[in-house]
Amino acid sequence: MEKNQEGITAKKEENFSEWFTQIVQKTELADLRYNVKGFLVFQPWSVLSMEKMYEHMEKNLQNKGHEPYFFPTLIPEENLKKESSHIGGFTPEVFWVTHGGEKKFEERLALRPTSETAFYEMFGLWIRSYKDLPFKTYQRAQVFRYETKATRPFLRSREFHWIERHSAHATEDDAFKQVLEDMNTTKEVLHDIFGIPFIFFERPVWDKFPGASRTFAADALNPNGKVIQLPSTHMISPEFSKAFNVKFMDKDESEKYAHITCYGPAISRIFASVIIVHGDDKGLKFPWDIAPVQVMIVPITDDKRIIKKAKDLKKQIEKFASVRIDISDKRPGEKFNHWEMKGIPIRIDIGLKDLENKNITLFRRDLDKKVVVSEDKVIKEIKKIAKEFTKNLIKKADKIFEGRIKDAKNLQEIKKATEEGFIAKCNFCSVDKEGISCAKIIETETGAEVRGTMLDEKNKAIGKCAICNKEAKQIVYIAKSY
Amino acid sequence: MEKNQEGITAKKEENFSEWFTQIVQKTELADLRYNVKGFLVFQPWSVLSMEKMYEHMEKNLQNKGHEPYFFPTLIPEENLKKESSHIGGFTPEVFWVTHGGEKKFEERLALRPTSETAFYEMFGLWIRSYKDLPFKTYQRAQVFRYETKATRPFLRSREFHWIERHSAHATEDDAFKQVLEDMNTTKEVLHDIFGIPFIFFERPVWDKFPGASRTFAADALNPNGKVIQLPSTHMISPEFSKAFNVKFMDKDESEKYAHITCYGPAISRIFASVIIVHGDDKGLKFPWDIAPVQVMIVPITDDKRIIKKAKDLKKQIEKFASVRIDISDKRPGEKFNHWEMKGIPIRIDIGLKDLENKNITLFRRDLDKKVVVSEDKVIKEIKKIAKEFTKNLIKKADKIFEGRIKDAKNLQEIKKATEEGFIAKCNFCSVDKEGISCAKIIETETGAEVRGTMLDEKNKAIGKCAICNKEAKQIVYIAKSY
Repeated sequence: MEKNQEGITAKKEENFSEWFTQIVQKTELADLRYNVKGFLVFQPWSVLSMEKMYEHMEKNLQNKGHEPYFFPTLIPEENLKKESSHIGGFTPEVFWVTHGGEKKFEERLALRPTSETAFYEMFGLWIRSYKDLPFKTYQRAQVFRYETKATRPFLRSREFHWIERHSAHATEDDAFKQVLEDMNTTKEVLHDIFGIPFIFFERPVWDKFPGASRTFAADALNPNGKVIQLPSTHMISPEFSKAFNVKFMDKDESEKYAHITCYGPAISRIFASVIIVHGDDKGLKFPWDIAPVQVMIVPITDDKRIIKKAKDLKKQIEKFASVRIDISDKRPGEKFNHWEMKGIPIRIDIGLKDLENKNITLFRRDLDKKVVVSEDKVIKEIKKIAKEFTKNLIKKADKIFEGRIKDAKNLQEIKKATEEGFIAKCNFCSVDKEGISCAKIIETETGAEVRGTMLDEKNKAIGKCAICNKEAKQIVYIAKSY
Repeated sequence: MEKNQEGITAKKEENFSEWFTQIVQKTELADLRYNVKGFLVFQPWSVLSMEKMYEHMEKNLQNKGHEPYFFPTLIPEENLKKESSHIGGFTPEVFWVTHGGEKKFEERLALRPTSETAFYEMFGLWIRSYKDLPFKTYQRAQVFRYETKATRPFLRSREFHWIERHSAHATEDDAFKQVLEDMNTTKEVLHDIFGIPFIFFERPVWDKFPGASRTFAADALNPNGKVIQLPSTHMISPEFSKAFNVKFMDKDESEKYAHITCYGPAISRIFASVIIVHGDDKGLKFPWDIAPVQVMIVPITDDKRIIKKAKDLKKQIEKFASVRIDISDKRPGEKFNHWEMKGIPIRIDIGLKDLENKNITLFRRDLDKKVVVSEDKVIKEIKKIAKEFTKNLIKKADKIFEGRIKDAKNLQEIKKATEEGFIAKCNFCSVDKEGISCAKIIETETGAEVRGTMLDEKNKAIGKCAICNKEAKQIVYIAKSY
């Protein structure tokens, strides 16, 4: 029963974890058998899509004036040590390079866990005057973290593929505008192109990025009710500018420290969200713009007329979409199931009967339905579907996400909501230091975490903290997480 | 004299080394001040171009059926040890990762110096049947070598950006066809798009890639007469397939070892050749398709009508080319020099006079000349120049390269030719082991190296070896190198 062996057998809603494992393996996104623990071999079906994700994110950043760099993968230990909270946060997770050939280095080199301490070292050399600001940079890179938590393909690996955007500004106001821009970029790319719904939270002080004064992070939601942190954007602490001497001569001829921000969309992790949000029990479902291949042509037999038609169509389609012909020796039914599982947006089946009737049969994965169109209208129809495709995926994803926030008044209600897969929303004493004890109670009793506050929260907290009964300063959101 | 400070002051033909140093620094291709020796910070002007180079090379490989992967950056020492000549060749250059956080690893991990031993480990798991062959893969990646030779930006760094293509084939014949395809790919991309002339040599046995049975490498030529090795393609030794157990069940139902090949275009090094081949005493000259920015619009004043015209033009041009407007507060003359130095293919100068006469002035960097066209013809003219641009660069580069090979009859003539910046061509006893002593004599006496033989050498070696006077088996090419 090759067909059954190949297909996804776990149900996404019932056994999400097994479903995800099968998706990664059976659609050949990544191979976990590489002989270094926590490291993946990314296979073509994920790489082709991630390359398109990179392209969209980089184009968006470049249009907003951020310029691309390639920084070294290695960072000297002295750089990491310059800012104490940063080194504190990252040291336990650093991979250390100690030797070059037979030679032992005097100072260890870190495989970058993130590159603040590489970029800001150079910012200190590059930035001189207010005319240099804003100084807007980014890089496409891999980063390395010796994770002690359990790794999961794409979600948490010891090497991941990301973009990191770093900028320096003349004023705190300008820096904050950059943070707002990042949130907007996240919406434009992750939601409007990749189709991932999320909420941006400002993290509580105890959950900030090591070295940040304020941290904002997008949380997406899995069917099992756990949130995944997607891109985060940070107001970097002034300690950093001081440690790396990032200062400039202002218009008023006084020397000032620059205000730094950074933003980190982890492409390989966002890819996990794409799979999870859109996939179904049959397999993957790719948004149009980031599908590894957008159109697959399946000749039902190897009749010459059919193959000729397939090649003709391919030529026309490749002018505006990525397209392949499946000439493998599988049976048609197997091919249909295979490409459905692989998440091809549009499949074109060409059989003799259709050919004689001058018809083409299209299968569209957004609505999981077949459409028969006359030959001369097929290109127009594909272009039409291409336009609607991601919108249909977004509509569905948004609808599922919208219903997933539930008000809670006390610990019990928080526990019930988060166990049922909701994000709980409640009054909370404070996301400053004094709230830590309440946050710990929540974590211990429910296994969920305070994810933070919303920047544009419509309602003010009125009443008491759901945990300690002190006066509530904020409304917070609570969820289980990875 | 800001203008003089900014411009390139060294002459390319007279003092090539200083010219190259100034180009890298003054056009802001890379910053060498990063605090790990031998590592560069690649700046936007090189990254924008290298990204386009990646795009062309990857598209070409994908069109030929090679599928993209991302392999881990770390390779276990046991993999490297599996093939003895490979580990022998690379061990002295490996950066070793020994710790994750506080934990010391039982086995050291290598920062990949190249990824044969990672790919073939997985080939051993993936390849089962002749139906799986040819198995065609590649990855875009950085590799790391603790070079003991002096590093030079882009030419030889301790971390470089490349593509590595790995494939497995059913027969040696198929593998060799892949090697020929690689040579063709090199021509299509490096010559026809990047404009770099080169010759493919089969390297003598003593200069093969560690682990290869045959090595073919493209040599380009610098104005100082030194050759640079650009992409190389290799027939991998059968020892590798055995060490990694890469075998398949053939049609005849017998198990056979696969024939492996690999090809490694080092994008950051090829970028050096782009700069070197096309650049002149004024600065960079980018081929059209890989220019960081293709068109720069320079408004002569900030008159509203001029700015409006600049924006109108930008909108039309960005439909088919990358274009920016220079609104900095530099004087027009400074801007002209600046963009000439930065190698912008087409500069558009917009002044009031031209505006009144409904004219546009274009400066084309391929011919270093100004063209005045009427407003309504400017888009057509830009498209026309775009088509001719790289051809003009190629014509010039090919012409310089063609005259650079000189026949030599003995050691003296080899010495003279290579010292004068030529590639010397002579009869040679043998590129097999027995020729090593003659090769050593050449190296000691002239500082030049036997680069190898040409696959499609038109003439046969008739006569005696230029060094030892034994009967010559081959015609070889000799040059100084990096």
